[in-house]
Amino acid sequence: MKLIDGKAVATQIKQEIAEEVTRIKTAGGKTPHLAAVLVGHDGGSETYVANKVRACEEVGFTSTLIRYEADVTEEELLACVDRLNKDADIDGFIVQLPLPKHISEENVTEAIDYRKDVDGFHPVNVGRMSLGMPCFLSATPAGILELLKRYNIETRGKHCVVLGRSNIVGKPASMLMMQKGYPGDCTVTVCHSRTKNIKEICLQADIIIAALGVPEFLKGDMVKEGAVVIDVGTTRVPSDKTKSGFKLTGDVKFDEVAPKCAFITPVPGGVGPMTIVSLLRNTLLAGKKEIYP
Amino acid sequence: MKLIDGKAVATQIKQEIAEEVTRIKTAGGKTPHLAAVLVGHDGGSETYVANKVRACEEVGFTSTLIRYEADVTEEELLACVDRLNKDADIDGFIVQLPLPKHISEENVTEAIDYRKDVDGFHPVNVGRMSLGMPCFLSATPAGILELLKRYNIETRGKHCVVLGRSNIVGKPASMLMMQKGYPGDCTVTVCHSRTKNIKEICLQADIIIAALGVPEFLKGDMVKEGAVVIDVGTTRVPSDKTKSGFKLTGDVKFDEVAPKCAFITPVPGGVGPMTIVSLLRNTLLAGKKEIYP
Repeated sequence: MKLIDGKAVATQIKQEIAEEVTRIKTAGGKTPHLAAVLVGHDGGSETYVANKVRACEEVGFTSTLIRYEADVTEEELLACVDRLNKDADIDGFIVQLPLPKHISEENVTEAIDYRKDVDGFHPVNVGRMSLGMPCFLSATPAGILELLKRYNIETRGKHCVVLGRSNIVGKPASMLMMQKGYPGDCTVTVCHSRTKNIKEICLQADIIIAALGVPEFLKGDMVKEGAVVIDVGTTRVPSDKTKSGFKLTGDVKFDEVAPKCAFITPVPGGVGPMTIVSLLRNTLLAGKKEIYP
Repeated sequence: MKLIDGKAVATQIKQEIAEEVTRIKTAGGKTPHLAAVLVGHDGGSETYVANKVRACEEVGFTSTLIRYEADVTEEELLACVDRLNKDADIDGFIVQLPLPKHISEENVTEAIDYRKDVDGFHPVNVGRMSLGMPCFLSATPAGILELLKRYNIETRGKHCVVLGRSNIVGKPASMLMMQKGYPGDCTVTVCHSRTKNIKEICLQADIIIAALGVPEFLKGDMVKEGAVVIDVGTTRVPSDKTKSGFKLTGDVKFDEVAPKCAFITPVPGGVGPMTIVSLLRNTLLAGKKEIYP
């Protein structure tokens, strides 16, 4: 069993990005600039946005954090999106989800100029990804593909089972894994809450991408010998052993599953760090106008 | 075994659309107007476009056919798209694919205003479909779902195997079949040319959507008893028994597969007629500005 060290890969890629930013700056080019919009004070969102801003600084980007209280109106938020769309210095920006219930996430996501949508959530980027066209790839699925690539894990002709059909992981991951080329060319099965024989299907998988958000869902008896398991779950489970009072728990019962795997990602330190790296890469591409002129 | 009569369902839906068009006209509303752009003289394309124009007339739409010779430049074609985008009387239009090799289908498809993209090929419509948002659904997958619905075929919790990963059938059909709700909520497996154990996977399927474009690919020993088989294949195979010199052949070896099925679509007369109906429905929605204001 080989542990996929997402943290180490992320560190390496951040270094590669930092080197490219240095070259761009040295050549007199524009420093990539990411803005993040954070609404309210959700603990998870605070942490994610803080990590994104810190990562921007690490690689030499400019970053801007815009905060709103949870009672901001949709109108005010859309006005902010509009300003960011028009701000020529901002190459890409994200509005951290989830948003308070009185604001439509769809409206906000659609209002973002797709050429600055470095989260890859806008319908144009989702559609172009599905069609195999250049686009800003959704961060988590892109991070998963990058891990498979860096570890030279064969995907062509393999059966990849995706657990979960969310818009930000399950669906785009399934689309990417079935695309022509590498990483891709998988036979792909998508399972979800309505799937009846999930154990039987998982046992056929060469690669499992677990993104249900159900802690320790995937047990040892659901995985065949030699499988590759990518754990996307990051549920905060209460814990009296940590200072924060919770611990991040994956969708995979690691102790049972790991011994059977050829490769497996841990939680934390697997897919998580790669998500931020995908965002940095999209921002770099946005700054260089490589996807959209 | 019950035959799914796509022709009869299509006739019924066309009648429903015709009645609605009559109501709209009686109420002084605008007559829906579809334009079709045809480049060159490919036999298949000629037939498809002629059928679309005829179907428009049958339901009371206005239709416009615009023809170009095969040597039209991409620039000229894009200028035509631009005119149609701006023409307030045209509610929706299609550019019949395939296009000659010197013209980029991606450029042309992306140039179409997504609010008039009644083929559902524009990235915005593909993306919105994937995200479960209102959109112009791609015609063939929408036709398949309509057939399942009209025949009250249960899909929830069923295992749907999609053969083929094309942008116009395989990928969108897989997305729609996994969406929450009915028809949908399927466990979905997508197989393609790189799939190794396609027979084994097909034998697990409750529903098979065959869209490989390989005549008579799906044999009797690949289908379990009681399966629902939807045949999207329409390959023109040379034949000395028809006046045209070819016959339309599906992806399913019908004689072997049909006896095992609960439901099956024939070729021709199954999915084919539904594709045009989906186009008519999208045009009606476009005329009523129901998807995009």
